[in-house]
Amino acid sequence: MKSVNIGICGLGVVGAGTFNLLFTNRDTVNAHANRDLQVSRVGARRDNPACDLGNTVVDRDVLAVADSDVDIVVELIGGTTIAKELVFKAIANGKHIVTANKALIAEYGNEIFAAAQSKGVQVAYEAAVAGGIPIIKALREGLAANQVEWLAGIINGTGNFILTEIRNKGRAFADVLTEAQALGYAEADPTFDVEGIDAAHKLVILASLAFGMPLRFDAVYTEGIAAIDSVDVVYAEELGYRIKHLGLAKRSEQGIELRVHPTLIPESCLIAQVDGVMNAVMVKGDAVGPTLYYGAGAGAGPTASAVVADLIDVARSLDAPSDQRVSHLGFAENALNDLPILDIKAADTAAYFRASVLDKPGVLSSIAQIMSNHGISIEAIIQKEPHADEDHVPLIMLTNQTSEENLLGARRDIEQLDTVNGKLVYIRVESLHD
Amino acid sequence: MKSVNIGICGLGVVGAGTFNLLFTNRDTVNAHANRDLQVSRVGARRDNPACDLGNTVVDRDVLAVADSDVDIVVELIGGTTIAKELVFKAIANGKHIVTANKALIAEYGNEIFAAAQSKGVQVAYEAAVAGGIPIIKALREGLAANQVEWLAGIINGTGNFILTEIRNKGRAFADVLTEAQALGYAEADPTFDVEGIDAAHKLVILASLAFGMPLRFDAVYTEGIAAIDSVDVVYAEELGYRIKHLGLAKRSEQGIELRVHPTLIPESCLIAQVDGVMNAVMVKGDAVGPTLYYGAGAGAGPTASAVVADLIDVARSLDAPSDQRVSHLGFAENALNDLPILDIKAADTAAYFRASVLDKPGVLSSIAQIMSNHGISIEAIIQKEPHADEDHVPLIMLTNQTSEENLLGARRDIEQLDTVNGKLVYIRVESLHD
Repeated sequence: MKSVNIGICGLGVVGAGTFNLLFTNRDTVNAHANRDLQVSRVGARRDNPACDLGNTVVDRDVLAVADSDVDIVVELIGGTTIAKELVFKAIANGKHIVTANKALIAEYGNEIFAAAQSKGVQVAYEAAVAGGIPIIKALREGLAANQVEWLAGIINGTGNFILTEIRNKGRAFADVLTEAQALGYAEADPTFDVEGIDAAHKLVILASLAFGMPLRFDAVYTEGIAAIDSVDVVYAEELGYRIKHLGLAKRSEQGIELRVHPTLIPESCLIAQVDGVMNAVMVKGDAVGPTLYYGAGAGAGPTASAVVADLIDVARSLDAPSDQRVSHLGFAENALNDLPILDIKAADTAAYFRASVLDKPGVLSSIAQIMSNHGISIEAIIQKEPHADEDHVPLIMLTNQTSEENLLGARRDIEQLDTVNGKLVYIRVESLHD
Repeated sequence: MKSVNIGICGLGVVGAGTFNLLFTNRDTVNAHANRDLQVSRVGARRDNPACDLGNTVVDRDVLAVADSDVDIVVELIGGTTIAKELVFKAIANGKHIVTANKALIAEYGNEIFAAAQSKGVQVAYEAAVAGGIPIIKALREGLAANQVEWLAGIINGTGNFILTEIRNKGRAFADVLTEAQALGYAEADPTFDVEGIDAAHKLVILASLAFGMPLRFDAVYTEGIAAIDSVDVVYAEELGYRIKHLGLAKRSEQGIELRVHPTLIPESCLIAQVDGVMNAVMVKGDAVGPTLYYGAGAGAGPTASAVVADLIDVARSLDAPSDQRVSHLGFAENALNDLPILDIKAADTAAYFRASVLDKPGVLSSIAQIMSNHGISIEAIIQKEPHADEDHVPLIMLTNQTSEENLLGARRDIEQLDTVNGKLVYIRVESLHD
């Protein structure tokens, strides 16, 4: 059995998890790779008590690993500074790369893949999206016969945990976020998770794989979950919907929609049932129809599972010519197509509106008239009795599917009515049916 | 771009679907394969109006395709007679094989893979299990770093359709079966579907991929769904469970459990929500934790999606040496391990019992005593009021997890009580949690 030398750079949760998994499941891993995968080097500024490095050579300067005799450099540092430098250096030295770094791939993937292509090396990144779920392999290979029509993913576990807690316990966003931080789900700086940047990184990668286009992190529309109020979770439920923070990519005649935002989805839809820190991605292909992939999106074990699966793939095809390997984005490089990314105003969506309206005759009719003026029909409506001491009541409406531009036009006009108090709550609705 | 010549044998629903998909999605397919996939030959006893063969060479004797100049023979005939002959002949002639034939792989896969191995050709069979869901790729590659602990699948769409109708509409089994036949979901001879043989074929394949063992169709325990009564579906629901026809494979210290039978699963479990003709497979790996894969398990489009994905993989590695290809069962041939398959009596399971008992004091206590004698504890119980004109009432019990042997011992003793009428209904329960 041939040996393959691996250098692991970064020894945090995922680095230690990868080192340990290669040790504990060595027989299974080697049987799948038909190679002996050896961690011959580790690059880490400090040791991690979670793993016993034994006699492994350790470089305190991670960049030294790129100059060593390893065949594959595993980048588990994170971020886009040292990690980026390491990856480009390793590629320049003819090393293959395995990485779990979504920011790096989403923001610099085009340049990284081009460099790798010119040096004849592979860059594998299954762990960058949805942890242990083999979604990149599914899109790149398993569904390769399909024209993907759309995909929708719960791809940030922290955000899904927060929304699940808001729904199950009626808790407030800030309260749950504090708990998520205490549990280690959310970072001390939760911006990447709650503002949807982490999900946007992952969505960009999925979309490029699905549609065969270069990575376009610059073009994703991103909205976080901080504004979600638990009353909207309750009203959504009354209407038969759950609120999830989705990454959505859709192909239309005009181009590609790329957006991350809170979304009402029908509770009968399987992905609506995905709770807590779990991730799931739905992919609709023209031949296969709707499919779904579910699992843990983060953590040492799940992420290491994906990293080591990549190591097995890369090790197996170490000596293969480029055209016998799966292309970095699934599609042959010369077949990639720089499809136009649509502005959010062109999004094809439905909406959930909540307005605070004066409880008197004629209000509903003036709102319905505005909707009609913008070509929108109202699919469902809830109006509640006023509380004893209030003269405004909440009015909740679900619209048909139309353009975001129409919906925003209606919102603006409704907000200008004297009978409407303050701003409207506006959450997009996706049926995920067709 | 290199050309690859493909011969499609069998032009039924799946054969025509494959031919058509290769035509309609040609650009996407070729971009993924980095090859020009050409259907240069079709073997079919008769044409199929669903596809326009154009100038494609057609052999009325499918075996002639194995003697032609194609690189890959696609076997979509089904069954284990001509299909088997074709596959062995094509392998002997150095052709690679793509097949959707679960019976052929489950029953003759060991010999087929050995023949392929000795001729240096590949046999790909993603379409044999769960239609368009890339579950074979997930097990063979995506989860390759894991020791799989168990897997559980809804892998027969007809059976799931029937159970879903029984639940949603309270209909009787025979009634729904007739409709499923009319809708084309079930064959005129529904034995393979309703007796679980089709699911057993698929389970055997999944288990070999999960545990790295030869295919053992001879050793699966198989029970169908014909005996499921709609009252049990209702009682299961009251207890928070759904009844699904599952294929289950579990690894323990003693060996492998391989079983297909109706199963109560908690409704909070995602797979419990998989309805109608859809398929889903849960896989629990030691590193990744629980994962789930969902999609259409049959039909022209979904099955062709898997067949063509295999064609892309095989075409890409046509010229690769064997050790750069993924092994037929994921594990290197010399790493396969003929693990013992446990007798059903050794199954580690819980049970749902329904007894018809005399409505008088002491009956419950005598039943509870028998359970205790067999080391079983009762986790939940439902006893209904008797109807006006009846002296027997239904008594429903859920047990803890124990051995099948204990459960059957208790059933036998309870059936011998004078206060119990007739046989007990016995359905296994799986939590799918650990």
